[in-house]
Amino acid sequence: MAILRHGGASQALSAATVRRLATSPSARQAFAQGPARQAVAAATSGARMASSYYKGEPDAPIVKTDIPGPKSQANITKLNEVFDTRSINMLADYTKSFGNYIVDPDGNTLLDVYAQIASIPLGYNNPALLKEAQSPEMASALVNRPALGNFPSHDWAEILETGILKVAPKGLNQVFTAMAGSDANETAYKAAFMYRRQRDRGGPAVEFTAEELESSMNNQAPGAAQQLSILSFKTGFHGRLFGSLSTTRSKPIHKLDIPAFDWPQATFPQLKYPLDQHAEENARAEADSLAEVERLITSYHVPPCAVVVEPIQSEGGDNHASPAFFRGLRALTQKHGVLLIVDEVQTGVGATGRFWAHEHWDLPSPPDMVTFSKKAQTAGYYFGDPALRPNKPYRQFNTWMGDPARALLFRAIVRETERLDLVRRTAQVGDYLFAKLEALAAKHPGQFENLRGKGQGTFIAFDNPRRDDFLKKAKKFGVNIGGSGQSAVRLRPMLIFEESHADILLEALEKVVTTW
Amino acid sequence: MAILRHGGASQALSAATVRRLATSPSARQAFAQGPARQAVAAATSGARMASSYYKGEPDAPIVKTDIPGPKSQANITKLNEVFDTRSINMLADYTKSFGNYIVDPDGNTLLDVYAQIASIPLGYNNPALLKEAQSPEMASALVNRPALGNFPSHDWAEILETGILKVAPKGLNQVFTAMAGSDANETAYKAAFMYRRQRDRGGPAVEFTAEELESSMNNQAPGAAQQLSILSFKTGFHGRLFGSLSTTRSKPIHKLDIPAFDWPQATFPQLKYPLDQHAEENARAEADSLAEVERLITSYHVPPCAVVVEPIQSEGGDNHASPAFFRGLRALTQKHGVLLIVDEVQTGVGATGRFWAHEHWDLPSPPDMVTFSKKAQTAGYYFGDPALRPNKPYRQFNTWMGDPARALLFRAIVRETERLDLVRRTAQVGDYLFAKLEALAAKHPGQFENLRGKGQGTFIAFDNPRRDDFLKKAKKFGVNIGGSGQSAVRLRPMLIFEESHADILLEALEKVVTTW
Repeated sequence: MAILRHGGASQALSAATVRRLATSPSARQAFAQGPARQAVAAATSGARMASSYYKGEPDAPIVKTDIPGPKSQANITKLNEVFDTRSINMLADYTKSFGNYIVDPDGNTLLDVYAQIASIPLGYNNPALLKEAQSPEMASALVNRPALGNFPSHDWAEILETGILKVAPKGLNQVFTAMAGSDANETAYKAAFMYRRQRDRGGPAVEFTAEELESSMNNQAPGAAQQLSILSFKTGFHGRLFGSLSTTRSKPIHKLDIPAFDWPQATFPQLKYPLDQHAEENARAEADSLAEVERLITSYHVPPCAVVVEPIQSEGGDNHASPAFFRGLRALTQKHGVLLIVDEVQTGVGATGRFWAHEHWDLPSPPDMVTFSKKAQTAGYYFGDPALRPNKPYRQFNTWMGDPARALLFRAIVRETERLDLVRRTAQVGDYLFAKLEALAAKHPGQFENLRGKGQGTFIAFDNPRRDDFLKKAKKFGVNIGGSGQSAVRLRPMLIFEESHADILLEALEKVVTTW
Repeated sequence: MAILRHGGASQALSAATVRRLATSPSARQAFAQGPARQAVAAATSGARMASSYYKGEPDAPIVKTDIPGPKSQANITKLNEVFDTRSINMLADYTKSFGNYIVDPDGNTLLDVYAQIASIPLGYNNPALLKEAQSPEMASALVNRPALGNFPSHDWAEILETGILKVAPKGLNQVFTAMAGSDANETAYKAAFMYRRQRDRGGPAVEFTAEELESSMNNQAPGAAQQLSILSFKTGFHGRLFGSLSTTRSKPIHKLDIPAFDWPQATFPQLKYPLDQHAEENARAEADSLAEVERLITSYHVPPCAVVVEPIQSEGGDNHASPAFFRGLRALTQKHGVLLIVDEVQTGVGATGRFWAHEHWDLPSPPDMVTFSKKAQTAGYYFGDPALRPNKPYRQFNTWMGDPARALLFRAIVRETERLDLVRRTAQVGDYLFAKLEALAAKHPGQFENLRGKGQGTFIAFDNPRRDDFLKKAKKFGVNIGGSGQSAVRLRPMLIFEESHADILLEALEKVVTTW
């Protein structure tokens, strides 16, 4: 195995891991092709961290065929026999993907600023994460999967405190663990319903009535809380299961034919860009939105017990609002005794230049709950008020309640992010990228409209009138980008995206709009 | 490291893995204490499989302290600061647990016939699964987690076909992958709603109306299918999120204060035991239930598009019905054009002596969908009719759509189960255990009431009038057992549970009822 001697991550893989790669045919197989081997080499070279975390990355994208190419197409045809393939964007060969680059079976190597719908934090085949993934502790977590509510491991508290809770939002020191964004949000909603009903009932010591017990089993009020709702915002996205989908207001195709609860929606402020040129009307839009929220809280026929909101509406098209708006929302919810749930499934874990996007708001008091998933690679909701634990056991419960294997991975993600100061770096790289995009937008009018995400790390988007074609063309120029909403091109690089990657991205974007 | 030279599994771990254990401090750490090292020794001894799969298991339970003992209690107190611990049954040390035995931090070593709420298939620290868990392929799956609907890996079809789909129920050759039982059921429900609305609309080519598009965004009919429901059975359990909880009818504590859909429930046949002594009235109960199902299908004000049923109602107390009942249900649903969803989350993967419990029914045509999770360690729903793929992409979709790491683990579970013929063995061991329990019940009248699960592998239960005390006392005699429903003691051993384990269990059960 060639050992490449350029700078790499300073935390070396264990000698045993390297020895295994050198001696085990099966281990070698996974690393033999593609740049993954270079990660190991870089990570074990012991050199100080260079400016680029991933020294083994390609210098630039490589586009060999149309995407999908012939090999990918053959695989897709085979997969389609057993698995719906109509939403496939591109097939990937993850044994060859590396760092910021995703590689497909035809050898196309694209700079990936979509990152599995914003869910890869530290790059493909990240050496530190591979080390964690091959640890005996991980193997045990995979094989001995507990029912966490009944039989947690002796070190579950420690795993939480050194991982998920180490990065808990300020003021929220407890967690309910879950599997993905949808159930993170839905369990948070459940906590909100139980909290509110308990308060209305007169406190945790008040027993359920016979009528409540009986009606709950028939899916009827008062036992089933049909009399309460969750308020969400138009163009918001909170998941795809029945409760979360009832708060999702992204597109009809996400909601059609699925029963939904009669829950209210408020208009999310529709800001105009650049923000500094539309300060007055934007402030008015935010005030109107808050007024609508208050009206719905006080007069909707199924009153909300909680408001759920994304710091930046992501699937809905990267819709922003100001810190003042969110401070107003916090004040409103407190005034009316309604909980505030901040959905950080897409915005969380560093991409906005803060670990949690709501840190940008300078709230006087924290949200009641913050949900997370995606780049955390595990999921759940944080909370602080002990009263958000329901008054009896087994009210908030399920078999697995998350996955310790994924919790271990998040801990490794947190450690690596802190070690390399990647949140601060993402803020820097985001500023660099945004400034260059502003210049590009000025140079090519109408192509990079409503550029947004200034000061929000790399969580940047713009609109293009031919968005779907834009995304397809970007692949030809070596970049994998995602869209959202009606016309948004959304950038969702990983936390290891650097200025050099930004330059490659910018060059490709300019090619797209100059070759229509 | 001591190498124990008794018989073990014939599939040896790779030499590299053993070498790593021998040379890596971190790897050794996880295996240094407790019996896990013996599994590796057994698996690598190369001897033919002996009668017992797990040669390194303790010979018998060891009870050193009350449970929780002092070390466990200290851990629980610490954990409680950040995580709700009121539903903890016992703390576990999974580095020391092995095979059928769960070990706690105080050194208590219990025969585990609850198995993480029926979700551990092949024993703690199973050597074949540990090998899979430490493979480079698993590390890649953990670190490079794809958005499966957008960017599946080039080998995803192969992983499915050699794993999840290798054991697909007859006639159901496609799968939608999910994370756990709740979202497996809810995505199956979503498929049912979309299927039915598409049919009512006139087929997949008919476009949505403007009214449907608009009303769906407001959570109103006709776009949101408030006009349709899922029919479930009283005392059934299908999960805890908003849609699945609307079909769950287990206990008020599971449902109170959570909004639910106005969906119908039918009475599940309440059979009397022993079955052969109550044939006539049981047949009447089943006929009554089917009549009620038909009445609800044809007259409930929110008509069902699907019926969901467990082969054995598990959380609800191990309620059985005959194959004839389920054949009748299949006929009824077909007659009325309603889909049949069989929830095999707890019954699937071998414990009933068939890989899928519904194989006991000899259905003339397969269910429309079968959901799975728990012992599969991954989740999803199987289906066969291509029309169950919605007519457009992105209708059934979410970011992760399952987890390839867990799909790899299920493949290893399938391989090991087949290699050791564990489903057939479970049928044998179940017959042995049931016969002994019948004798015990006859010897101790009133203590093992309504013994049920004959011919259903080790999926056995009975009622005890002091059930909660029964379960607590069982721990004192070295056995970890779960309850369900009002008074059921449910046995959920792993697939590696053998006659020798049954003897230990039986001895403990007798001690429980003779020392009140």
